[in-house]
Amino acid sequence: MPEPGSLMAAEIAEQPAVLARLLDNGLASTRRVASVLAARPPRFVLLAGRGTSDHAALFAKYLLEIRLGLPCGLMSPSTMTAYGARPTLTDCLVLAVSQSGSSPDLVESVTVARACGATTLAVTNAPTSDLAAAAELHLDVGAGPERAVAATKSYTAQCMAVWLLVDALAGGDAAAARAVPDAAQEMVGRRAEVADLAARYRFASRVVLTGRGYSYPTAREGAIKLMETSYLAAHAFSGADLMHGPMAMIDPQYPVVAVVPAGVGERAMEPVLGRLRASGADVLLMGAADSPTVAGRFFQLPSGLDEQVHPTVDIIALQWLALEIAVARGLDPDAPRGLAKVTHTW
Amino acid sequence: MPEPGSLMAAEIAEQPAVLARLLDNGLASTRRVASVLAARPPRFVLLAGRGTSDHAALFAKYLLEIRLGLPCGLMSPSTMTAYGARPTLTDCLVLAVSQSGSSPDLVESVTVARACGATTLAVTNAPTSDLAAAAELHLDVGAGPERAVAATKSYTAQCMAVWLLVDALAGGDAAAARAVPDAAQEMVGRRAEVADLAARYRFASRVVLTGRGYSYPTAREGAIKLMETSYLAAHAFSGADLMHGPMAMIDPQYPVVAVVPAGVGERAMEPVLGRLRASGADVLLMGAADSPTVAGRFFQLPSGLDEQVHPTVDIIALQWLALEIAVARGLDPDAPRGLAKVTHTW
Repeated sequence: MPEPGSLMAAEIAEQPAVLARLLDNGLASTRRVASVLAARPPRFVLLAGRGTSDHAALFAKYLLEIRLGLPCGLMSPSTMTAYGARPTLTDCLVLAVSQSGSSPDLVESVTVARACGATTLAVTNAPTSDLAAAAELHLDVGAGPERAVAATKSYTAQCMAVWLLVDALAGGDAAAARAVPDAAQEMVGRRAEVADLAARYRFASRVVLTGRGYSYPTAREGAIKLMETSYLAAHAFSGADLMHGPMAMIDPQYPVVAVVPAGVGERAMEPVLGRLRASGADVLLMGAADSPTVAGRFFQLPSGLDEQVHPTVDIIALQWLALEIAVARGLDPDAPRGLAKVTHTW
Repeated sequence: MPEPGSLMAAEIAEQPAVLARLLDNGLASTRRVASVLAARPPRFVLLAGRGTSDHAALFAKYLLEIRLGLPCGLMSPSTMTAYGARPTLTDCLVLAVSQSGSSPDLVESVTVARACGATTLAVTNAPTSDLAAAAELHLDVGAGPERAVAATKSYTAQCMAVWLLVDALAGGDAAAARAVPDAAQEMVGRRAEVADLAARYRFASRVVLTGRGYSYPTAREGAIKLMETSYLAAHAFSGADLMHGPMAMIDPQYPVVAVVPAGVGERAMEPVLGRLRASGADVLLMGAADSPTVAGRFFQLPSGLDEQVHPTVDIIALQWLALEIAVARGLDPDAPRGLAKVTHTW
């Protein structure tokens, strides 16, 4: 009988190698896709994904809007699959993200979008999947077979792949990503430090995660990891949305995790951290060394990384946190109840 | 000293009159805006809102995608306000929804979007607000002054206003909305029935709400009402997203509220209800008379309404639920801790 979570732990530990490989081998295919898109520049982008892959799609949304000034939207697949909408999608790029490439509703959405005139691009970990076949263009994140139900290495590889694509479209040379594999290795090595933090949440029944800008997808992805492994009711809000309503439920018994790497998002989080401080909330602040203090704990994120590539690295601490809380609760993160690796929704 | 929640209760009860007034008086201005948009048809739509207004924007997204086949996206305001993105927005409609019209980040987003070439439309309850002034076009939802911190009548008025607009753009005659004021009156009259249901949640610390298609915004808005009045950790998922990860945390101790009026969304929810049944979840099913049974309770939604207008009506039961749970807990829903009526985020 393997140790609980050993599958997930092994895949967490693989991430530095997966990311380094993608940087070495993925650049050429990324640039080929970028050149196709550059010749047929989209006016706007629709992004699609489910669960973890939806958070990589959300990261892509921030990159496309900020670096390329492209208006973006997240697709609501049911409008096409259940309600039969047939939008006019010429000049539109549909970017679908999926580990397995086999979610039926994504395959159908991409098929319909292509028939409606969209340029379609699938980012998957399964080059022979239905989704890869349905889309005109494909990027393989090359994370290798992912066996744990809780996706880890496929997520960071998806983030890296969409970052490389947007960087290529912006005429970059991938420089900011070079530091990522080492920073990821540093985070992989901090499992014991995170296990100490996890002990504090052994009996928590709920937690709020928050971040802004590039770090909002990290808060969302951290929340789903916690939900699916430790069954914590983990709820993610952008810092701005947290202030509009949900802040009322935060009291000192409601743990908060704030993801605040140095950068623009950090400055936008200042008023949010101020409000959390005033509410007496218990905050685990994952931040830069000079972040303002709050009540609770501090976890220092790697320094010297561009804010844009932090999501590929910071999530690793939350992957460990989800695994360690689950193990502390006597659960097996490799066997979440009621979940299969591939979810079939229409 | 007024009774706790009396302000919120009065505004919940005003909704049938607010909706009837909007149907009588709002049609002319809605058609004027529709004719401007018809002469300058957008290729895609970006929607913006915070908190409750964001859920009216999400409802608009489903309407625009399904009825008009227009690709839509929800704006991430921080990309323009914090990160300084300046997207090309010619052929784009930016639709901003706000009760007060005074959220600084929305005003700035609309101002930037207009400068970037977008057609801008503000839907507010404040025709002299900064947001109404910043946008080229304005629709006044005319809900009258809203004094309770938890928005109720402004939300249903926003939903009705965007429905009337999309219906006008689709060449409709507003027929499906005629039944709404009476159905809303029926729901207002069912406070005692909801109070009985609320007693079951007196000691709950968390709840999941779910719905699909047009009812997903209802689940989202119900969740924020519960968070801001009763401090319940209320988490909303589209039925499809619930199956991708969060389902693992659902056990018989985790209450679920499913919003499933008759229609296409109902059929798309069937596999979700099946999974909930298998997990032994305690489900409050808000549905049509012939909905499949689940363990838990049943609340019958008004019959004979078009699925598209249900969101304007169904939310009233969840407004009462939030108020009654808060009152049962000895809280005053009119004075949620840490919240002001207007939230200033940048």
